[in-house]
Amino acid sequence: MADNKPQVQCRVRVTRGEDIALGPGKMELLAAIAAAGSISGAARAMHMSYRRAWLLVETMNSCFQTHLVETATGGRAGGGAQLTAEGEKVLEGYLAMLREVEQVAQQHLHRLLKNSPLAPEAGATKATNKSH
Amino acid sequence: MADNKPQVQCRVRVTRGEDIALGPGKMELLAAIAAAGSISGAARAMHMSYRRAWLLVETMNSCFQTHLVETATGGRAGGGAQLTAEGEKVLEGYLAMLREVEQVAQQHLHRLLKNSPLAPEAGATKATNKSH
Repeated sequence: MADNKPQVQCRVRVTRGEDIALGPGKMELLAAIAAAGSISGAARAMHMSYRRAWLLVETMNSCFQTHLVETATGGRAGGGAQLTAEGEKVLEGYLAMLREVEQVAQQHLHRLLKNSPLAPEAGATKATNKSH
Repeated sequence: MADNKPQVQCRVRVTRGEDIALGPGKMELLAAIAAAGSISGAARAMHMSYRRAWLLVETMNSCFQTHLVETATGGRAGGGAQLTAEGEKVLEGYLAMLREVEQVAQQHLHRLLKNSPLAPEAGATKATNKSH
């Protein structure tokens, strides 16, 4: 079963102090804004409140010297939104980082499992595997 | 403030089907068992129930062809526990993978932030940064 092949999952965050400047949720939101053409559309697509999406955009915009998202009205009142050139660059840079990280992890995993093979069948204690 | 320097945080998991064969929690548990010499001591150090630690060990042992942890009594009744040679190899391999992943991500971040500098001060919307 293809499903039973070991998979590497990588998460990359960029923090500064208590702020998360970049992370999977924020990057998903950037991509959703680019696709939907508005913050409200992106929020709906991500099953997130408009307020939360808007606050995440505010955080991203305030973390970078140049805003990543621009709104048609410049404010909160709905209307369209799109990524700035800077926003596109940051999203692409993040995705490139993630791809290379996953590739490196995959190569390591290959070596690790060659030296320490997995058992032929999946682990028996299904109930305990969700959060570690 | 050194605290305000952007940091990369990477998490790497290895899954097979629904099982998480390797991840930060399980690897921390392996290291804690090596340090404490028992599953119960490791569980205490990690503020985790003995039952949960034991189940995580069971999952790891059943995921690999060779057990990663061996207990003095071979069972559930307490007593000492230690990493097998295989367990040490897997833990080292995972930590090496993580180090290289972090290094690659750090290099990417350096390039990304050179092209898209952060604002001089941290973002203003503190309350919204916890989960993305």
